[in-house]
Amino acid sequence: MVVKSTIPACDIVIFGAKGDLARRKLLPSLYQLEKAGALHRETRIIGVGRADWDIKTYTKVVRLALETFMNDDIDDQVWKTLSTRFDFCNLDVNETNYFSRLGVKLDQQARVTVNYFAMPPTTFGAICKGLGAAGLNSKPSRVVMEKPLGTDLTSSNRINDQVAEYFTESQVYRIDHYLGKETVLNLLALRFANALFTSNWDNRTIDHVQITVAEAVGIEGRWGYFDQTGQMRDMIQSHLLQILTMIAMSPPSDFTTDRIRDEKVKVLRSLRPINYSNVHDTTVRGQYTSGYVHGKLVPGYLEEEGANKNSRTETFVSIRVDIDNWRWVGVPFYLRTGKRLPNKCSEVVVYFKQPALNLFQDSYQQLPQNKLTIRLQPDEGMDIQILNKVPGLDHKHRLQTTKLNLSFTNTFNQEHLADSYKRLLLETMRGIQALFVRCDEVEEAWKWVDSIIAAWKAVNDVPQPYQAGTWGPRASVAMITRDGRSWNKCHEGE
Amino acid sequence: MVVKSTIPACDIVIFGAKGDLARRKLLPSLYQLEKAGALHRETRIIGVGRADWDIKTYTKVVRLALETFMNDDIDDQVWKTLSTRFDFCNLDVNETNYFSRLGVKLDQQARVTVNYFAMPPTTFGAICKGLGAAGLNSKPSRVVMEKPLGTDLTSSNRINDQVAEYFTESQVYRIDHYLGKETVLNLLALRFANALFTSNWDNRTIDHVQITVAEAVGIEGRWGYFDQTGQMRDMIQSHLLQILTMIAMSPPSDFTTDRIRDEKVKVLRSLRPINYSNVHDTTVRGQYTSGYVHGKLVPGYLEEEGANKNSRTETFVSIRVDIDNWRWVGVPFYLRTGKRLPNKCSEVVVYFKQPALNLFQDSYQQLPQNKLTIRLQPDEGMDIQILNKVPGLDHKHRLQTTKLNLSFTNTFNQEHLADSYKRLLLETMRGIQALFVRCDEVEEAWKWVDSIIAAWKAVNDVPQPYQAGTWGPRASVAMITRDGRSWNKCHEGE
Repeated sequence: MVVKSTIPACDIVIFGAKGDLARRKLLPSLYQLEKAGALHRETRIIGVGRADWDIKTYTKVVRLALETFMNDDIDDQVWKTLSTRFDFCNLDVNETNYFSRLGVKLDQQARVTVNYFAMPPTTFGAICKGLGAAGLNSKPSRVVMEKPLGTDLTSSNRINDQVAEYFTESQVYRIDHYLGKETVLNLLALRFANALFTSNWDNRTIDHVQITVAEAVGIEGRWGYFDQTGQMRDMIQSHLLQILTMIAMSPPSDFTTDRIRDEKVKVLRSLRPINYSNVHDTTVRGQYTSGYVHGKLVPGYLEEEGANKNSRTETFVSIRVDIDNWRWVGVPFYLRTGKRLPNKCSEVVVYFKQPALNLFQDSYQQLPQNKLTIRLQPDEGMDIQILNKVPGLDHKHRLQTTKLNLSFTNTFNQEHLADSYKRLLLETMRGIQALFVRCDEVEEAWKWVDSIIAAWKAVNDVPQPYQAGTWGPRASVAMITRDGRSWNKCHEGE
Repeated sequence: MVVKSTIPACDIVIFGAKGDLARRKLLPSLYQLEKAGALHRETRIIGVGRADWDIKTYTKVVRLALETFMNDDIDDQVWKTLSTRFDFCNLDVNETNYFSRLGVKLDQQARVTVNYFAMPPTTFGAICKGLGAAGLNSKPSRVVMEKPLGTDLTSSNRINDQVAEYFTESQVYRIDHYLGKETVLNLLALRFANALFTSNWDNRTIDHVQITVAEAVGIEGRWGYFDQTGQMRDMIQSHLLQILTMIAMSPPSDFTTDRIRDEKVKVLRSLRPINYSNVHDTTVRGQYTSGYVHGKLVPGYLEEEGANKNSRTETFVSIRVDIDNWRWVGVPFYLRTGKRLPNKCSEVVVYFKQPALNLFQDSYQQLPQNKLTIRLQPDEGMDIQILNKVPGLDHKHRLQTTKLNLSFTNTFNQEHLADSYKRLLLETMRGIQALFVRCDEVEEAWKWVDSIIAAWKAVNDVPQPYQAGTWGPRASVAMITRDGRSWNKCHEGE
């Protein structure tokens, strides 16, 4: 894979060099970028953390991380180049005055500084303050941070305000790693390069949309963290709303960063508010009990290690979202996400309306709908469900739903389906913000999500139990059934 | 394959029992219908011809035909049942008075008479007169005849008038065997059961349509017959116009016979006339010269056995057809058919317009169009060409056309793709005329075709040579290129 456009020389500063995100995601991605020839000759990688490490020790730490978390073997030639790039800075991010230590390791004349905050959001204020104190905050310095920022609008605003004290919005790169996925990016091509869809993408032709992000895993040893967050903040607020905006946005006037983000935020502003008056009809919360996933007995959420038996945190949410704008009024978007569901699956399913008149009523009281399924993971791809005549000599019109299928992994087998972090790191170096979430998007998302969480509190909502290995509480099925619809059966590697 | 609806008992009378059509198509189809259990217990098959055959001799003739022209082995059990059904009537169709001989072999009280005219259209008048004289023309008697009827509107009207003297339109079944093809029938399902297409099926979304019926074969020893006919009368007037009406027709109010035929004839009435003023711009005639087809050297049309070296008969036609109605104005239908083309291929390609705005202009001056390809033969199926993002880390939006494919032969492998004649024979027994061409359809098609042929004469048009194994004269390419479009590269069993 050759990366053609020019990438400038960077100082990539990793705050939280010892942490999970750095070791599992960032370092392997940097290795892959090195291998692809995408790092500038002069680019350097500086780990920051509280450790008395010299370059040699840090290089060993990186090597171990790569060996542990990468599937590929390490190529000697690639490693030889990569390993010359490292440096390490022993720094407690609360010690504002010591950030000058970092400064001496950077060259802001010759290189762009990319500060990657691979630490909890509560530390972002301190880091920014330290960078400011050392005069490291002016351009070409950039900061990269992972969503979710905070746990509600207030805490999110606090973090954004702290960052904004030292960095302008054009320097801030908020990552939602779903925006780095090939299949999510492909939504732009699919929607705006294909007249077959552009001419159909509204409430005249589309009946409803389903967005599912299902996980088979449970809490994975981070019960305490998750219990403070819940599925709503962890998944809906970030990934599912981002996918929703990509599906629902109107065509931007061009593909520059802010024209895309303008359209996305317009969608978020059009979401019909959910509050105590409609929360019961439009949302379902669930919490898993023990059951079988992939044939293995797993404990319930309240039986996990470290669990508080009285927790009311949800591990499943489904929501009927209405978008009150000209394009989408009357077309519900059903979101569904949960842990300990039968299988891992992220997908968008666009259901088209039935033909205006059913000419096949002799054979079918109701015709099956056309469906466009966009599989985000696993088995990235898409298919279109069409009705065809069943061959045969019958007099009646026997129809059959058949799928026109396109698997990206089969079709694009030579080209690597790039990992999200690799792509997003590259974009931070390029200085292109289109795939990052703007401050007002974060705000609008939190506003809408906070209202729902407040409504749950107001009505004293208790999450409904669902057995691990099922598709959530019965109430979730009931919600969509009331609308005369049903959840798509998720793709299971057919 | 079980055929569920009830088929009445019939006397199937084959005029021209000794001929090619009867032996190659009708008898094998009747065998297959027997095998499928689709023939009524009491149904009988009566050959008519000038031969001094008894039942035993005729049965031997049938057996030989099946052995010669069927791919399958003859099943003993099937043959045992089938062979009890035969009878033979020695009759010269011009001997009106002797049709009573046929009468004694029929039972019009107990069975429906299906008179299949497997003879040249010039004899149809005589047959009808004979049937009338013997009182065999009243219901439940039906007549089945193959298109093309005659060689122009006048001769076609003459035949239809002769038939109409003895049979009402509801007794007449005009076969265009393309209407029996699964893939042609599927056009109805595709168009009217899928909202994805119904909402798009007009000049707002569709740019143009191409209909290709390509043959690799040449004249196959019937130079004299073909030279009188030409590709225009042989293919355009019948098959290609029929396919065109199926693609272009407006939704019928229901799927009963005459509601479908009403809509088809409306399309034919809306075809923009082609006459001496526009024939040069909208039509191309060709005649093949020697060349290589499938790697074998073949003679030119004028070098075929029995050829008149001065013949101006066309073996290739391409036409730009405009349909002047609200749905299609501005959307040309390009028809193309010829002999000695590179491969056998019948297909419809619907080209969608480009998106209203090209948001990808950085990378593409012009976006490739979405295409819906319906493959009628060989390799029946359909595919949709979509634009997707090429996976990779490039900053520019690299797009790639990819195909969502559906092969009927793979998908419906258990169900036999029924042969046209089998289906059409069955429909004549059922008495359902939907798949047969009504008199006014034939008339309108001839009117339009006659005008073109007259225009060619008026301007003294000479067919342009094209080498066998190519896609016709250069002028055919030039015609579509003038409109800023290009011919689809026909499917070659990819």
